[in-house]
Amino acid sequence: MMLPLAITMGDLNGVGPEILARAFARPGFAREIAPVVLGCPQAYAHARALCSDAPPAVLVNSAAEAVAALDRGLPFLADTFRAPERRPGVLDADAGRAAMHWLARAVDLAVAGEVAGVVTCPINKEGIHLAGHTSRGHTDFIAQRTGAPAYRMSLVVRDLLVIHISDHVSLRAALDEVRCDRIVESIRLADETLRRLGRPKRRIAVAGLNPHAGEAGAFGSEERDEIAPAVALCRAEGIECSGPHSPDAIFRQAIAGGYDAVIAMYHDQGHIPMKLAGLDDGVNITLGIPIVRTSVDHGTAYDIAGTGAAREQSLMAACRLAARLGRTKARAR
Amino acid sequence: MMLPLAITMGDLNGVGPEILARAFARPGFAREIAPVVLGCPQAYAHARALCSDAPPAVLVNSAAEAVAALDRGLPFLADTFRAPERRPGVLDADAGRAAMHWLARAVDLAVAGEVAGVVTCPINKEGIHLAGHTSRGHTDFIAQRTGAPAYRMSLVVRDLLVIHISDHVSLRAALDEVRCDRIVESIRLADETLRRLGRPKRRIAVAGLNPHAGEAGAFGSEERDEIAPAVALCRAEGIECSGPHSPDAIFRQAIAGGYDAVIAMYHDQGHIPMKLAGLDDGVNITLGIPIVRTSVDHGTAYDIAGTGAAREQSLMAACRLAARLGRTKARAR
Repeated sequence: MMLPLAITMGDLNGVGPEILARAFARPGFAREIAPVVLGCPQAYAHARALCSDAPPAVLVNSAAEAVAALDRGLPFLADTFRAPERRPGVLDADAGRAAMHWLARAVDLAVAGEVAGVVTCPINKEGIHLAGHTSRGHTDFIAQRTGAPAYRMSLVVRDLLVIHISDHVSLRAALDEVRCDRIVESIRLADETLRRLGRPKRRIAVAGLNPHAGEAGAFGSEERDEIAPAVALCRAEGIECSGPHSPDAIFRQAIAGGYDAVIAMYHDQGHIPMKLAGLDDGVNITLGIPIVRTSVDHGTAYDIAGTGAAREQSLMAACRLAARLGRTKARAR
Repeated sequence: MMLPLAITMGDLNGVGPEILARAFARPGFAREIAPVVLGCPQAYAHARALCSDAPPAVLVNSAAEAVAALDRGLPFLADTFRAPERRPGVLDADAGRAAMHWLARAVDLAVAGEVAGVVTCPINKEGIHLAGHTSRGHTDFIAQRTGAPAYRMSLVVRDLLVIHISDHVSLRAALDEVRCDRIVESIRLADETLRRLGRPKRRIAVAGLNPHAGEAGAFGSEERDEIAPAVALCRAEGIECSGPHSPDAIFRQAIAGGYDAVIAMYHDQGHIPMKLAGLDDGVNITLGIPIVRTSVDHGTAYDIAGTGAAREQSLMAACRLAARLGRTKARAR
């Protein structure tokens, strides 16, 4: 039996309801993905008014009923939780509370093995803080709920996987995270993820930290002391990795197809080139947690919410990636 | 009278002689630029064998004679210095010594007002160190020779200017350079440079340092303490600048035409996106020095030197930019 994929609506005042409507208006996409949405059917109906081809919401009582319900529309998991009315572009604590409620349910379903994975639409961090949540965002919350503090944020744009040694910390704090052990973990995660994606080649490039990768120690010692030893250790384990490479050259080479994954030494080292290269189809994956979780690569976009201008490409790419990862994971059980 | 532009050959064992031959083989380019080459005519003749349309070298005794000599070929300034024979791809102290000799002459001609500016072909840093030079490279040497220690490296890709707060230092050291005074200097330099380039709009974006520009102080305080005050100060001076902007979004917006210049907080913040965006036509400019100086955006490329595979686009873009800057400078005198 095909396990469905849980998709959370995120902040219902953002573009989440609209990108759901647009994605599942695409012929065949619901069958391909087998979604079960955690979100508000009324907010979805509001967004569907902007997208006449979208299927109607249909309530199901469990994830197991979702696949059979696809004939009738887009399955939403029934819920006693009362979400507020949708007001596009409005920052609202109740919308933040709803988003986190759906996220928690989706994560629990994945942990219980009732769904193949979780795909998240964007939340508003201010909104969830107003609702009394203290986590920095989705990923933090999921890592805490699944007891996986050593997670890694990564980005996928088309065929390239980029894993970051650290994420939402100051650049100064990020420098202290550039340690051999964290780099080794990241290289291993990259190799394992490429394997799960069924990729025949797993060529992993490790970026340097300093300009020109430190130019042989002329500026900065992290390449010699932390990065090169991590690469050597992983090569000895049989992983096809290389580096440290010059940061201002390696992303261009990787995007051109020269590598399958890049290990980035800090958030912006990977995000700057990937946001430039990935026009609409970038996806976030959280690695190192016990469930499959992907996410769109954009925010709530309050400025265009309710106008129908939001694009569904990133959500579709996030669903496809989660489905691929979820299926391999199911086979491995 | 049109002042010529001094072009240095750089390391004669690199691609310098070849990109000179290829650029000036283009019909009309020599007339447009009015070059006078500081380099070895024999090495040029060697490279010209790979590019049959290139004009022959013609010796001139002073920069002032160069324009009149264009009818007969590509003007080289006569020199008693003996350069070694060209051996493509070979690291050679004598080639390094020759490159620095030509650079020094070109800089002196520019300081004396005999040329409109200096365009440099790539040198090999190891080669110049073998030759006993201690400067970190071209730019360092030029800054010392012209007594301008507060220079800034910047990159131009098509219409976008990116100025870096610091350049070839470790990322850890670069963090200490993110100071209000340096940012203010850089914003002023960007405004002045766009003015000299004759640009009607001068919209300057200042990048943040931390992920998402620190997300309102959640990770990192440099945005609040150093960057925002610099932007406020320059706005009060009437400069059209904004920021701090999120580093992973601003380059995409700027490259799409939303800004005319970006102030980057460290080398790779600007280099990673510009190398990705600028395929063959990126140019370096050194700002804050008393002469016009541009440079190709690539190295000696020993691996392809002597094969004719090197591309001339970056050299042509560097010459055109120097000519534009040089002409405005000449008018301002």
